[in-house]
Amino acid sequence: MKKIAEVQQTHPLFRQVYEFMTNRMERGEWSAHEKLPSIRLLAEELKVHRLTVFKAYKQLKEDGKVYVKDKSGYYVSPGSSLSLDFEENAVVPSYLLSNPLSEIQRVPAKYQFSQALIDPNLLPNLYLSDYVKKVFDLYPKVMGTYSTVQGDEELRETLSRHFREHHRLQLSPEELLITSGAQQAINLIAKILLGPMDTVLVERPTYSVAMDIFRREGARLVPVDITPEGYDLEKVEALMAKHKPRMFYMNPTHHNPTGYTVPARQRKLLVELAERYRCLLVEDDPFRDMYFGEPPPTPFFAYDTEGWVIYISSFSKYVAPGLRICAVACRFPFMERLITAKSLADNGTPLINQKIFLHYYTSPRLQQHLGKLRIALQVHKEIMEEELAAAGWKWTAPQGGLNLWVKLPDQIPVPELFRLCTEQSIAFVPGEIFDPLGELKSWIRLSYSFANEGQLREGMQRLTALARTL
Amino acid sequence: MKKIAEVQQTHPLFRQVYEFMTNRMERGEWSAHEKLPSIRLLAEELKVHRLTVFKAYKQLKEDGKVYVKDKSGYYVSPGSSLSLDFEENAVVPSYLLSNPLSEIQRVPAKYQFSQALIDPNLLPNLYLSDYVKKVFDLYPKVMGTYSTVQGDEELRETLSRHFREHHRLQLSPEELLITSGAQQAINLIAKILLGPMDTVLVERPTYSVAMDIFRREGARLVPVDITPEGYDLEKVEALMAKHKPRMFYMNPTHHNPTGYTVPARQRKLLVELAERYRCLLVEDDPFRDMYFGEPPPTPFFAYDTEGWVIYISSFSKYVAPGLRICAVACRFPFMERLITAKSLADNGTPLINQKIFLHYYTSPRLQQHLGKLRIALQVHKEIMEEELAAAGWKWTAPQGGLNLWVKLPDQIPVPELFRLCTEQSIAFVPGEIFDPLGELKSWIRLSYSFANEGQLREGMQRLTALARTL
Repeated sequence: MKKIAEVQQTHPLFRQVYEFMTNRMERGEWSAHEKLPSIRLLAEELKVHRLTVFKAYKQLKEDGKVYVKDKSGYYVSPGSSLSLDFEENAVVPSYLLSNPLSEIQRVPAKYQFSQALIDPNLLPNLYLSDYVKKVFDLYPKVMGTYSTVQGDEELRETLSRHFREHHRLQLSPEELLITSGAQQAINLIAKILLGPMDTVLVERPTYSVAMDIFRREGARLVPVDITPEGYDLEKVEALMAKHKPRMFYMNPTHHNPTGYTVPARQRKLLVELAERYRCLLVEDDPFRDMYFGEPPPTPFFAYDTEGWVIYISSFSKYVAPGLRICAVACRFPFMERLITAKSLADNGTPLINQKIFLHYYTSPRLQQHLGKLRIALQVHKEIMEEELAAAGWKWTAPQGGLNLWVKLPDQIPVPELFRLCTEQSIAFVPGEIFDPLGELKSWIRLSYSFANEGQLREGMQRLTALARTL
Repeated sequence: MKKIAEVQQTHPLFRQVYEFMTNRMERGEWSAHEKLPSIRLLAEELKVHRLTVFKAYKQLKEDGKVYVKDKSGYYVSPGSSLSLDFEENAVVPSYLLSNPLSEIQRVPAKYQFSQALIDPNLLPNLYLSDYVKKVFDLYPKVMGTYSTVQGDEELRETLSRHFREHHRLQLSPEELLITSGAQQAINLIAKILLGPMDTVLVERPTYSVAMDIFRREGARLVPVDITPEGYDLEKVEALMAKHKPRMFYMNPTHHNPTGYTVPARQRKLLVELAERYRCLLVEDDPFRDMYFGEPPPTPFFAYDTEGWVIYISSFSKYVAPGLRICAVACRFPFMERLITAKSLADNGTPLINQKIFLHYYTSPRLQQHLGKLRIALQVHKEIMEEELAAAGWKWTAPQGGLNLWVKLPDQIPVPELFRLCTEQSIAFVPGEIFDPLGELKSWIRLSYSFANEGQLREGMQRLTALARTL
């Protein structure tokens, strides 16, 4: 027994010393053929036992990262040390991974089909401005007050009532956390759930930034195809049995980028699988209210009795996206951990944003706005679809959401089309970016929510004309 | 050469497999005496070579984490597997570390001396509300618009001008990133700079949440004493030479919790040390404008020509803290990495908060407000000091900031006083929390900024009376 106790104390240290040394080499602080500090000096510096440093050097030598010369000491092997200039290197430390979607969207464009955002002109701006003024009269000190870390209690109470009445979700205010946008929610969830080599199931295709976040935590992504019919549940079960994933990140309602919706009958079954295989379902649900015909099926969260679904509801997207208000619903013990992660991340979402959102959200005006917005989005979608049909391209008409997921004819090279379009100030997102396998090379995502009707018509005609030149 | 290339590919996998397995055990997914999957099965599941899994098992066995029984396979050693109920265990995975300061501050109190926040009544609330209404007239679509990830360009331009004119900092708008509060800034900086076993110099005492953040990244903290005279630069140099720290996290102006200010003559010297030892200085500067006599010395950032200072300026604290607006100044290449980290964290701070801050910040009213606020804070401080003097307690009168750092007589046990005070609705923070060494057991932090004058007088009398009973 003594041996076990001893080793458990020293072992994490061994790993830490090892990582410390490889980090220094990877950062170029210890460069190729540089003599490394002696075991004695390094043990002193790191305040660990010399044996631990000796073991780390031994392992580094076995791994070819350091070499021994004339018994005079350890030296850095060439190739172990990377320059700090990370653009020159293929090997980039995971914490520096870039966000390619954000980079594409950063480029301004006249015909903006790369942003899955709602045209600000479709929002009730004047009404919102008037409304905000009332909020300031109601809470004159809101600019001087911090929110609690978990989020404003009045907002959480209102939302828990809303979820109960509209989506049949049984939720107490204690089971809700307010975050600054859905992306922060995904980030916090990844932080508390994922470690190196953990498996995450992701839809294929899926929201690319979520993949960036999971990969940064060292997780491995295993794709689950999403089709207009939903998932292949037998395959999902086989993947859960084989990979024991920590979580399945899903966007099952008016899915981004495809617009598909997972049917009701699959929802209950998948929650049962999640319970059986102890795999958390992370249900990202930002497009629920953007439907064109019937409202979509109830969230997965409604079928969950054991706490295996975390629900991300970022409805501020179509109310007032600039506020960046999102609600995460989950059960104990995950909620406690999420609150701690949130407290370290930013100590709570600004109260003013929460109060503005709360009061607009409970106003009768919201339902009117939503009705009008659905019609406007459907008109947008149909303009885009007319031009796609004229070009003979293929897509599945979505029941909601902000995007069309389009298959181009095989002879059109997407990178070339992308380059031509960028020159002509037309923006879209190559489908490859949404694919965990990096394939799907003849697909593109076209968002119809941001451009106005004239820009949609004109931009799509220009885009399809450019494609014909290829 | 072939060997090196091969090993470099396999080695990170070995570590990842090892961590994957220990994580599963630590989380209790593989429990004590449970039979582990065969090498073949696990290699298939993780899609790695069997030899890599074999090596990981071998290492786990050496470390006493697993044992072999009757040649029938590997089993989890007792003690390697932890229950998911983390409150019962001393060993908590680093990503679940709690934030004790936030927990203390969560408890409501009538005499609130634990919050280093400004009493909302001291802020120009009515004026701010009127002002916000103007901002909405100016930017009617602000609620529907996202900010760029780096932050609103108009705000960054204004702030770079402000820094130039007021603090002699040469800064382009491209060298500024807007974050949601200083805590998010510290978090993003830690994420891009720190890895396991990296050393961080921190002041002793220091802002406890920063320590929580650094520890969560696996860093080791090395304390640098801060006194009314600043740092002992010889000691700092010795620590830099010995530990090669990645960064020194400092709050050198009206320091939290002590209120001390590092003198001008030390600032230039320390920047030189930072350059020489390649140790980034992370200068957290939220209390700069809260001075009582002369304005404080120029920031460290002004002395930096080589890019070794990152400057965190969270001045919204005394303008409109609820907005959570903070600016981080740093040079290439750190800025590029910070922007990527910010894009994954929350995709940008809400534009509305930035625009409100911008317009209030540039209004002539701000300087008037600041002048009044300084006087009010000084009055607050003096009330607290009178009661401390009456009790015979010791402190160094600060030149600014929001806190007094108080040494209690040795016979008063702080945990006992804390318990009594909590019962009587008096809140303060035990000094131990701010100490990287967890000592300083007879010190406490008293914030004079949040309670009003009556509460300060009465609360301090009650607090010192309670101490006399001990």
